[in-house]
Amino acid sequence: MKITIINTGGTFNKKYNLIKGALDVREDASSLEKIFSWTHNVDFEVKNILALDSLEINNKHRDIIIKNIQDSNNKNIIVIHGTDTMNETATYLDERIKDKNIVITGAMIPMSIDTTEAVMNFASAYGFLNAKIDEGIYIALHGVVCSHDKIYKDKKIGKFLVK
Amino acid sequence: MKITIINTGGTFNKKYNLIKGALDVREDASSLEKIFSWTHNVDFEVKNILALDSLEINNKHRDIIIKNIQDSNNKNIIVIHGTDTMNETATYLDERIKDKNIVITGAMIPMSIDTTEAVMNFASAYGFLNAKIDEGIYIALHGVVCSHDKIYKDKKIGKFLVK
Amino acid sequence: MKITIINTGGTFNKKYNLIKGALDVREDASSLEKIFSWTHNVDFEVKNILALDSLEINNKHRDIIIKNIQDSNNKNIIVIHGTDTMNETATYLDERIKDKNIVITGAMIPMSIDTTEAVMNFASAYGFLNAKIDEGIYIALHGVVCSHDKIYKDKKIGKFLVK
Amino acid sequence: MKITIINTGGTFNKKYNLIKGALDVREDASSLEKIFSWTHNVDFEVKNILALDSLEINNKHRDIIIKNIQDSNNKNIIVIHGTDTMNETATYLDERIKDKNIVITGAMIPMSIDTTEAVMNFASAYGFLNAKIDEGIYIALHGVVCSHDKIYKDKKIGKFLVK
Repeated sequence: MKITIINTGGTFNKKYNLIKGALDVREDASSLEKIFSWTHNVDFEVKNILALDSLEINNKHRDIIIKNIQDSNNKNIIVIHGTDTMNETATYLDERIKDKNIVITGAMIPMSIDTTEAVMNFASAYGFLNAKIDEGIYIALHGVVCSHDKIYKDKKIGKFLVK
Repeated sequence: MKITIINTGGTFNKKYNLIKGALDVREDASSLEKIFSWTHNVDFEVKNILALDSLEINNKHRDIIIKNIQDSNNKNIIVIHGTDTMNETATYLDERIKDKNIVITGAMIPMSIDTTEAVMNFASAYGFLNAKIDEGIYIALHGVVCSHDKIYKDKKIGKFLVK
Repeated sequence: MKITIINTGGTFNKKYNLIKGALDVREDASSLEKIFSWTHNVDFEVKNILALDSLEINNKHRDIIIKNIQDSNNKNIIVIHGTDTMNETATYLDERIKDKNIVITGAMIPMSIDTTEAVMNFASAYGFLNAKIDEGIYIALHGVVCSHDKIYKDKKIGKFLVK
Repeated sequence: MKITIINTGGTFNKKYNLIKGALDVREDASSLEKIFSWTHNVDFEVKNILALDSLEINNKHRDIIIKNIQDSNNKNIIVIHGTDTMNETATYLDERIKDKNIVITGAMIPMSIDTTEAVMNFASAYGFLNAKIDEGIYIALHGVVCSHDKIYKDKKIGKFLVK
């Protein structure tokens, strides 16, 4: 199976920077390396296009995401994205891309701090792509993979909830 | 979404026993607790029916697995099973159950030692169940969720490979 | 052996707060719980007196640290403290306390992110206190336990170095 | 500071072997690599002389340990050793080596499974060596560094206890 990963940064990719004494978004996909060591049956294409907290993502960035998705030969796409504006990006993509299977995922806690949540979200995304699904924009978070408009982030409790 | 987990043990659930100085299969599903803390959108029913290394699993055990699957009201089933005889169990189930969506998964390394692999395999299973799939017996391992007869364990290199 | 732990916060105790999307200093000593589960031979008294980044620590805070050390019946003291002003606090204590064995320690990376560094620094502190040492103020960091004026933090590379 | 590490194997060094489906003692000191990445102030000499479960260690092996200690130019020695016969080895060494500072340590749970316990024991050993201590044979385990005849392993509960 071929999957293109569009990596835009977000909490998923944050790592501790001991010089700054804070977490920052890494520009590489080093958080994915442990996952890739176990996905030898998948042909991943990785595009590290942005390294942003999702609060910084605007429509110019979303156009870059779209261009990279359209430029890819692969039908199956996983977008790694910060959680705060994940739904906005999903809606923006939904209005502009009709012929791809796109699952957007991310994490509430950096994979470098909580392996379980980040890996769960990412792996549920590719598990879903293994089925025969309709083209569209999906979100994979907290146990669910569903159409992007069926799930939202409850910022008070820090969880994604199905509507 | 409702999913029944049939837990038969296997490497997935092994934990270090410091009195014995060796790994043993825990009879509970404690390895799943970290996963459950992030799957608040899923209604899991957990049946810890066996705590066996899969080399010990015979057809009597498989009949117990089948009875528990048939007794469940849920259509979606995840079976956690040791890797060595996972394919034999899948074939046995395939001949006897026709009306359920069953994904068998497990791990090459205990979740207590390598969080990434075990969580990946489990989460890809429920990600797959989120799609509209045909009834059948599937295996979720190493990046893939597919019909059980399309994947096998290469015991020399310790990896599941797609045929 | 009896040891009083004076916990002032610092990076050692930082944990990820998923609502804020950032690390914060926990007011409890929850980072020490994993250590305590293995130190059943030590009678630890824990005083969580501050929960500060060490850049915020001033002489008023240092006077609180001193009061708590002097109020303790124990001779052996471990102070957990942020790394940026650890040496200033050590000098301040050295001028005011003469009759205790005090080891100051901390971490460059939160224990919740890198177990190895934080545990190393803390355990080297109590290992040192197991020897017959002269009263004084010591720092335990990055492989060394020595008089506080023999070691400093190189902020450019994020390491403590022996002079 | 210069410290020679005599690595004889033991649980400390065990890692999961996914082909065998069991833990084995690695012949290298790879478990120490994470520790070494934070001990840049220490000049460690590492001798990987044995890779044995301590139940297999006999006096021939102990003579090899002694020869390696005597051949080292360093006064400060850490011996990594399985816990079951740690006290026997300590007694054997005590009768034959009088001019070195030797701390024997190990772990009840492999460092690859529980980072905290193994790192604690090892770091308390070098913390102790940073003090001016009398020559002798010490054991560093579970919060304590003391003369080897003051501590023993309670095999029923899996803990080292001070007498």
